[in-house]
Amino acid sequence: MTHTTEIRVRYGETDQMGIAYYGAYPLYLEVGRVEAMRAVGMPYAALEARGIMLPVRKLEIEYFKPALYDSLVRIETTVTPPAGSRLVFQHRLFNEAGASLAEARVELVFVDAQSRRPMRAPEDFVRLFSE
Amino acid sequence: MTHTTEIRVRYGETDQMGIAYYGAYPLYLEVGRVEAMRAVGMPYAALEARGIMLPVRKLEIEYFKPALYDSLVRIETTVTPPAGSRLVFQHRLFNEAGASLAEARVELVFVDAQSRRPMRAPEDFVRLFSE
Amino acid sequence: MTHTTEIRVRYGETDQMGIAYYGAYPLYLEVGRVEAMRAVGMPYAALEARGIMLPVRKLEIEYFKPALYDSLVRIETTVTPPAGSRLVFQHRLFNEAGASLAEARVELVFVDAQSRRPMRAPEDFVRLFSE
Amino acid sequence: MTHTTEIRVRYGETDQMGIAYYGAYPLYLEVGRVEAMRAVGMPYAALEARGIMLPVRKLEIEYFKPALYDSLVRIETTVTPPAGSRLVFQHRLFNEAGASLAEARVELVFVDAQSRRPMRAPEDFVRLFSE
Repeated sequence: MTHTTEIRVRYGETDQMGIAYYGAYPLYLEVGRVEAMRAVGMPYAALEARGIMLPVRKLEIEYFKPALYDSLVRIETTVTPPAGSRLVFQHRLFNEAGASLAEARVELVFVDAQSRRPMRAPEDFVRLFSE
Repeated sequence: MTHTTEIRVRYGETDQMGIAYYGAYPLYLEVGRVEAMRAVGMPYAALEARGIMLPVRKLEIEYFKPALYDSLVRIETTVTPPAGSRLVFQHRLFNEAGASLAEARVELVFVDAQSRRPMRAPEDFVRLFSE
Repeated sequence: MTHTTEIRVRYGETDQMGIAYYGAYPLYLEVGRVEAMRAVGMPYAALEARGIMLPVRKLEIEYFKPALYDSLVRIETTVTPPAGSRLVFQHRLFNEAGASLAEARVELVFVDAQSRRPMRAPEDFVRLFSE
Repeated sequence: MTHTTEIRVRYGETDQMGIAYYGAYPLYLEVGRVEAMRAVGMPYAALEARGIMLPVRKLEIEYFKPALYDSLVRIETTVTPPAGSRLVFQHRLFNEAGASLAEARVELVFVDAQSRRPMRAPEDFVRLFSE
């Protein structure tokens, strides 16, 4: 499943190099993830309301070209079916000219909000991916 | 009661104007507040552990001179004795040469974490100020 | 001139109180400002490309109700015609139910990017407001 | 060369899971890097003053345990001698009890600030590592 969304680089996200700070990308990837989950019919906020959290376990970003202030960044997000307690998102970021800005992989873990321990992906979530 | 602490401007807090972003200052003021409360013997984390929160009700910042990357910013924080449910911090920020960078005033409200309703300042907190 | 835009509260903008951090609002106000200027036909990025910067001189925010994760926040931005080197934006933030979340006032200064000194508002910018 | 520094988790860096947001770590790693370079006698600000920038090319973070509000996080930073235009930092983050919170690897590129093109690591920088 691939989903596409867009963010606009905010002034506060740039640094004095005149480009989006490398630490702004986790926020962008979060938007990609959250909108992909909403599109699939499983908003992250709804998961959390059921007592399920999805902390990040691993983050990898490769930066190819800088993202500029006020430019629109297209985020392509691919979710793979959850395996056990693990959920993996892959992201590709593009500028308005279609040039590749970055690629990223984010691995999250389903966690029970009460016990704060890993748990298997909820059945209805898994089922969404077999359809 | 006036307390002094220092922060160093991070690269991620600068923007493409080459100065600390105006939106980084609330984080700096938070450091000033938190260290002033720790110095007084009432760390904010301890308050929160007792079920008391201190959300911000009002923020005012005047910016005089830019704070530069990697520079040390001295934060002078003055707390006035709490009145009812209200707690007010005043801040003055200086650069390494002693020039005034900004002045700020932050008004917070004591809130019961359960009910999320305003509450009077805890007695021991008020007592700290009458000593 | 009043302009309306919307942001969605990101997870990274919440804090452990479970609401948008008070320091996230300057970013939201920036979005309000930037979109209002774009709507008026004078994007901030275009100003900067002409060697004009608009640092913030004064910030005031009153917080009435918390902004929640993943909620849409409507930002109403009013610009008043620039006076001398000064530009003032007023903002009102609302949640999806129409409740008032916050009100803010941001005062910016037109600055020459070379000299880093205040300058009068550019004529074409002023003219936009007399129409 | 291994260097150790410390940061304290700010309230604004937590999220509604009650832990430091995964996107706050790039800021922490930046502090580790910057303080390691300062210790070595080559502050990043001095490099930039000479027209050399160090944008991030690749970021990898593994998160083992959450970093909590107001806790001190110890950052151990290891720099390997620069190879060509590449500079690699490895980081290990620990909490106050000595438990491992995260491990990270950040790859940066020496870039000429004028041309914005990669350049070889400056000789004096390389020499620092052969001593």
